[in-house]
Amino acid sequence: MPLAPPPVHVGEKIAGVVCVTSGGTTVPLEQRCVRYIDNFSSGNRGAASTEYFVKSGYAVIFVHRRGSCQPYCRYLPEDSFLEFFEVSDQFEFQALNFLRNSFFSSIQVVAEGLLLKIPFTTIFEYLQILQLAAASMSCVGPRGMFYLAAAVSDFYVPWENMAKHKIQSAAGPLDMRLTQVPKMLPVLRNQWAPLAFCISFKLETDPEILLQKAEMALGKYQMHAVVANELATYKREVILVTANDRIKISKENDDADVEEKLIQLLVEKHMDYIKDLGKNVCNV
Amino acid sequence: MPLAPPPVHVGEKIAGVVCVTSGGTTVPLEQRCVRYIDNFSSGNRGAASTEYFVKSGYAVIFVHRRGSCQPYCRYLPEDSFLEFFEVSDQFEFQALNFLRNSFFSSIQVVAEGLLLKIPFTTIFEYLQILQLAAASMSCVGPRGMFYLAAAVSDFYVPWENMAKHKIQSAAGPLDMRLTQVPKMLPVLRNQWAPLAFCISFKLETDPEILLQKAEMALGKYQMHAVVANELATYKREVILVTANDRIKISKENDDADVEEKLIQLLVEKHMDYIKDLGKNVCNV
Repeated sequence: MPLAPPPVHVGEKIAGVVCVTSGGTTVPLEQRCVRYIDNFSSGNRGAASTEYFVKSGYAVIFVHRRGSCQPYCRYLPEDSFLEFFEVSDQFEFQALNFLRNSFFSSIQVVAEGLLLKIPFTTIFEYLQILQLAAASMSCVGPRGMFYLAAAVSDFYVPWENMAKHKIQSAAGPLDMRLTQVPKMLPVLRNQWAPLAFCISFKLETDPEILLQKAEMALGKYQMHAVVANELATYKREVILVTANDRIKISKENDDADVEEKLIQLLVEKHMDYIKDLGKNVCNV
Repeated sequence: MPLAPPPVHVGEKIAGVVCVTSGGTTVPLEQRCVRYIDNFSSGNRGAASTEYFVKSGYAVIFVHRRGSCQPYCRYLPEDSFLEFFEVSDQFEFQALNFLRNSFFSSIQVVAEGLLLKIPFTTIFEYLQILQLAAASMSCVGPRGMFYLAAAVSDFYVPWENMAKHKIQSAAGPLDMRLTQVPKMLPVLRNQWAPLAFCISFKLETDPEILLQKAEMALGKYQMHAVVANELATYKREVILVTANDRIKISKENDDADVEEKLIQLLVEKHMDYIKDLGKNVCNV
């Protein structure tokens, strides 16, 4: 039976272009890499946010960790999608409705040119892709947004210090010195995308230092907003920290996405930012 | 249109029970874990081998890393399975033939009780599950096999040395001392499963030390066979090392699986082992 695709609500014209980063970056420990340090991140936040940005009329560059959660496929099982099929007594093969809807939303959004997916694995790939995305978005100026939800490694092993081959375990305990990854947020903000609206994320496990860290990041890196979240509660609650506000955003019910309200709020702030920038330009 | 399921060739009776371990284990670096060390492994070897063990009449306990490659789903894309559907001009929704076949093979094998899947993430989970699998397989004695293809961490951070919260990056370079994971192969071989047929894997990046390392493992841990593979060529070539032989096994063509011949050979060796053990028991 032919199926009509479910509607994807796209605005009359593109409201803006957002680069959503999603999932964790890795840091190789060996030149011929067998072992690496990884950062916990399912990529669910970035995938969900991408869907709401598209719904709000944005075109999205989805810079994501290979194999992490994807927009319109968030509810698929981790290990085997086969659970999403059902089989009749006559061995008839049926995809469940959810799968059909995912499929049609996904192809429609890609077909309309509203979603470009670019994968990364290591921190090195991630930073290069971010720079390229910034360069390609410079033509939209303040209509560009960076929504940096990826869990980016803080420490890495410089190439020259890396073991060439797999580290042998027979040699006793392993001592490692990891170097800090240079902070790239100021570079993005000041050099790569000086006109874009920039949102970074702060995840902490200790609730006592979370807001303090988020405010530090806001000031130090001149972000337009920082999304503060705690490991224990990040699925149901975030705090949006800006120069003037701390807005707590919670899930309304079990089926809701905390990203729905978050993106709505950020889109409003982005539109205000574009207007203000326009006024300032006129005033000059 | 109703579809007949493709046949899965299962022997008249179960030839044996094999515990296949697959994918890499992780080592958390913080008690409330944000960062962890991971071992490179797609899980493809374990997933492919599982299919050939089932085809050879074995029941398989597939102990695998969450999210790693699964039997009968090996050719699915990493990021989005949606590529495996096609849509007609009338928005008719069609799964490609490959997906149909995967689906039917998978449900048939699970329905016949030939495949039990158990997931792990950390090295701690992995070792506990391995011990449980060994205990549950002790009733089949020498008909049991352990095919240890998982990439198990060599180093870990003991719980008491672990940072309680997310490690802060502001404090400069990070020095870490990792402790060796105790070797569990001798424990499995001598205590948990003394009658089972045991195969371990040796992956190296340096071809010059590979065979030497594999032979060391064979002797030191009293394995019945060690599968030696090199990072650069592991998809197309392995060397099966036993007390009497070194047998090189290569893919016959691009579409073939190196696991097909490997499992065939191991099943023969396992059957010989069962016979020999039977003779020895009779001779006593």
